[in-house]
Amino acid sequence: MSNAPLPPGSTIGILGGGQLGRMLAIAAARLGLKTHIYEPGTNPPAGDVAAAVTTASYDNEAALTRFAAAVDVVTFEFENVPASAAAALAAHAPVRPGYRALEVSQDRAKEKSFVESLSIAVAPWRAVGDPNDLKVALAEIGTPSILKTRRLGYDGKGQVRVTDARQAETAWEAIASAPAVLEGFVDFERELSVIGARGLSGEVVCYEPGENVHRDGILHSTAVPGAISRSVREDAVLLAGKILNALDYVGVMGIELFQTSGGLVVNEIAPRVHNSGHWTIEACVIDQFQQHIRAVAGWPLGDGSRHSDAVMTNLIGAEADDWTELAAECAGLHLYGKAETRPGRKMGHVTRISPRG
Amino acid sequence: MSNAPLPPGSTIGILGGGQLGRMLAIAAARLGLKTHIYEPGTNPPAGDVAAAVTTASYDNEAALTRFAAAVDVVTFEFENVPASAAAALAAHAPVRPGYRALEVSQDRAKEKSFVESLSIAVAPWRAVGDPNDLKVALAEIGTPSILKTRRLGYDGKGQVRVTDARQAETAWEAIASAPAVLEGFVDFERELSVIGARGLSGEVVCYEPGENVHRDGILHSTAVPGAISRSVREDAVLLAGKILNALDYVGVMGIELFQTSGGLVVNEIAPRVHNSGHWTIEACVIDQFQQHIRAVAGWPLGDGSRHSDAVMTNLIGAEADDWTELAAECAGLHLYGKAETRPGRKMGHVTRISPRG
Repeated sequence: MSNAPLPPGSTIGILGGGQLGRMLAIAAARLGLKTHIYEPGTNPPAGDVAAAVTTASYDNEAALTRFAAAVDVVTFEFENVPASAAAALAAHAPVRPGYRALEVSQDRAKEKSFVESLSIAVAPWRAVGDPNDLKVALAEIGTPSILKTRRLGYDGKGQVRVTDARQAETAWEAIASAPAVLEGFVDFERELSVIGARGLSGEVVCYEPGENVHRDGILHSTAVPGAISRSVREDAVLLAGKILNALDYVGVMGIELFQTSGGLVVNEIAPRVHNSGHWTIEACVIDQFQQHIRAVAGWPLGDGSRHSDAVMTNLIGAEADDWTELAAECAGLHLYGKAETRPGRKMGHVTRISPRG
Repeated sequence: MSNAPLPPGSTIGILGGGQLGRMLAIAAARLGLKTHIYEPGTNPPAGDVAAAVTTASYDNEAALTRFAAAVDVVTFEFENVPASAAAALAAHAPVRPGYRALEVSQDRAKEKSFVESLSIAVAPWRAVGDPNDLKVALAEIGTPSILKTRRLGYDGKGQVRVTDARQAETAWEAIASAPAVLEGFVDFERELSVIGARGLSGEVVCYEPGENVHRDGILHSTAVPGAISRSVREDAVLLAGKILNALDYVGVMGIELFQTSGGLVVNEIAPRVHNSGHWTIEACVIDQFQQHIRAVAGWPLGDGSRHSDAVMTNLIGAEADDWTELAAECAGLHLYGKAETRPGRKMGHVTRISPRG
């Protein structure tokens, strides 16, 4: 497989057609690259800005094969693509980032073991396979703690908080007896994330870490630089480089962190562009979406510098109904073109920039 | 016809599918609006980022009618749409900017008369309908001068320089005996342009004027703020407001100017987003493309402020073949996705920003 950069006119295949795919497709178009979206749902937001769309399920091997044969490289906006789909694709086109990153990030237990193997801290945790495991784990980790399914969790779904060891049975039922991990609560000072990228030739570039605020388990806002100290910023970037290199990663990754009195603790890694990196669209010349496209197309990465400070705020559910008021402000307004507004659904975001402090 | 803003999910119809249509489509998508491109040529660059494409000629009334019926507003990236097409469209959807702007800008003689009617200077000129007109005009205006067809000229096409009155006949043949204007040369200190916008409710917003350099009749670069003095910047913006208001204009307009010892002289007006406004993508939160979409969709305009200084350089013909070198630089690289490279063809551009001086 050649490491030569894909020339303009090449096609990037993207698994998943939501807002991340939409912003990736726009970034690819800026560089003269075409995109082809593969998405099980109809009328995906990314389809409006892509040269081609395949509507098929992630277990349709014939469709996956046709898709991979029609594109020059495959990437994804969504990490929970079945491993079988990734394998079917990899037989026909390079898949970037590769299988190892998917495998690790799809399973909370594997992810935590992997991060620990790099001597990077994660929250105290135990794998839980049955009610008895849960009881033992609760005894060891204590409460409050959170029971999370190992697979397919995002935006606070597939998790339940346990405040008392006697709730073990209810909690186990709440996650439908799925293989899980029990995580101890982390006493953090702030939440932050770092958006890192690694190119095909191994170079690593990070954006400045941002300070995140979550509400109801969903990202509410990211501020850059926020109140993050210089030494914490450096620690976050070094940690990101370690993770990217260990996975021989190609593309952009979002790493969510807790800042504690004892240092940084990894909360979660996402092998894709990340909501907490949306501020880069307005505040950087090369944003996280173009950076990801550059990486998977084998192009050199941008330097990740920002020209402005930024605060990104998500528009969740009905918050996007205020688009007329938001449009009256001279800010970076983004609406994702989703047909239906639902509570808790990410409908758009707005980024407000200010001169670098 | 209601003046209410078009809600997200609405469709903007765009006549013309080149790079301007492509960047307009991207801007519309950011705001949750869909686009539908109407273009006679196959595989238009804008088609890769649009929800729908109609391939039909500008005199196909049935196709124009179907197109207008399928969209919520019609705009264009190309001002030389036949008046008959604009009329067919206007029967089914609002066309913004409207017929008057098209009529004036499609005909150099009408454009110059219109600008003069606002007490704004243009280069000395005469309408030329036959070889005898040309001889009289050459005697009055002198040489060197430029003979330009009244219609369908852009990027230096449809024009011929006359350095001696004895070349009248050759010049007339060179423009294929088309109705024309003879323009006197303007002794200018610099070329500049102002990108102005007018909203549906009449508000006018301008970006800071940029200093332009042309090579072989094609824009080579735009620098903002360039070496333009504060008073000239103010004059340019006032002049733009006058033109936009006089046309009851809706959308973005590019106005090319000469700065002379006697003040500003209008060279050309373009009733659309303009190459000399591409720098706004990297240097402003709301760029000229989003500004145009906001105007034609009846949304409030952004304030036109820039956070950075900028220099935009076009990539003409084979210059875009250097994409690997250009990609290695952390600059705003744009490639238009054109299938074929031709000498003189605009293939992309690059914008380099720096902190505001």
